[in-house]
Amino acid sequence: MQLFYYPNLSLGAFSFNEEESKHCIKVLRNKTGDTLQLIDGKGRLAQAIITKDHPKKCEGEITQVTLFEPNRSYQLALSIAPTKQHERIDWLVEKACEIGIDEINFIACENSERERINIDRLQKICISAIKQSKQYYLPALGELKPLRDHLKTASDWQKYIAWCETNPTEHLAQQLNQSEKKIHLLIGPEGDFSAKEISLSQEAGYHPISLGSNILRTETAAITAVATVAAVLSKSL
Amino acid sequence: MQLFYYPNLSLGAFSFNEEESKHCIKVLRNKTGDTLQLIDGKGRLAQAIITKDHPKKCEGEITQVTLFEPNRSYQLALSIAPTKQHERIDWLVEKACEIGIDEINFIACENSERERINIDRLQKICISAIKQSKQYYLPALGELKPLRDHLKTASDWQKYIAWCETNPTEHLAQQLNQSEKKIHLLIGPEGDFSAKEISLSQEAGYHPISLGSNILRTETAAITAVATVAAVLSKSL
Repeated sequence: MQLFYYPNLSLGAFSFNEEESKHCIKVLRNKTGDTLQLIDGKGRLAQAIITKDHPKKCEGEITQVTLFEPNRSYQLALSIAPTKQHERIDWLVEKACEIGIDEINFIACENSERERINIDRLQKICISAIKQSKQYYLPALGELKPLRDHLKTASDWQKYIAWCETNPTEHLAQQLNQSEKKIHLLIGPEGDFSAKEISLSQEAGYHPISLGSNILRTETAAITAVATVAAVLSKSL
Repeated sequence: MQLFYYPNLSLGAFSFNEEESKHCIKVLRNKTGDTLQLIDGKGRLAQAIITKDHPKKCEGEITQVTLFEPNRSYQLALSIAPTKQHERIDWLVEKACEIGIDEINFIACENSERERINIDRLQKICISAIKQSKQYYLPALGELKPLRDHLKTASDWQKYIAWCETNPTEHLAQQLNQSEKKIHLLIGPEGDFSAKEISLSQEAGYHPISLGSNILRTETAAITAVATVAAVLSKSL
């Protein structure tokens, strides 16, 4: 069954915007009377039927809506600086969404390699990744802001920070415990955190972690941390 | 210090091939008298000095060779089918090398999306990844061969297999135990393993694993499995 993203799901009539109409009618060749599934990224899955197969304004009827609970036993947020090559952040976002994440925030650091991020582009990657991996919750993406502001607004989650010279700190897998439900990961930029930033982050409650003895690229460190959380906390499911 | 790959390291004279000479002299602008570090991908790190900064045939002298032990407490092999888009295998190879792996083998399955693989291209990615992550061992890359042949030659390592419909099998993290030293991961192709292939693999000693409740792309499943092994076995370091 084909899955479409439709953020404001409720029973009754719906209509796709021009882009989604084109995708549904011209690309996937759906016709009036065909059935679809819609997700809103907030846990809802809807059954729908096409009532008007217009290639620019496809219309239909939502006949059933089911609300799913999150399928993870924990919440996970990641904060990371954009990489010089945007492809590296693209794939990180795709992979983190597939493995499972609730929030990806972008931070500007002293040694950041890039100062802009295209949130719309990344949101499309997220939507595609959750469809692909059959999830009902769309991760939130946070606009780029300075690390200092980010630390100020940081919540009461369990917080971990990784940077290049973290060894011989304990591995994230050793520091995590099964009772943790809300985890925030802060990953150093390609140029690494400055000593000042590390000190500020630790004052804000971030615990240093290691991700093994190899020097990882920033996006590899992030995906390793996300997969480590999934691996360790999967045990408690 | 700049790191160069030079597979036949020993004390005394060395000369780079045309490609490495160009990279060393024209791109990185090294001159006669400059010092370099060379790695052979088999654990050796050499100190060297340039004696002739020719842009097509750079020559030098190796003054010291140090042999390093592997920095992991386990050996890890991965077998996977090439993906339709070669970029997906490229980044998997890069990330697996960074996190740490000994062997990546390519398999042809009934539902494989691609039947060729460019090992030279992938080896360059491996070399670049181990330089980047400061490792001294280059993973071995196995030419594409049919799954059946692969199963025949499979060794006495601890073997795990993942495919899309593996749930509700236990997560790899739960099945691994700290005493394991040699692990072989077999990951399903984009079109998934056939029922026959799953049955053959299990007969050959591969234990089914889950990698969480989300449906992962083949390369995401592979990197998740590699990171899971690193996370769980890192505890025993």
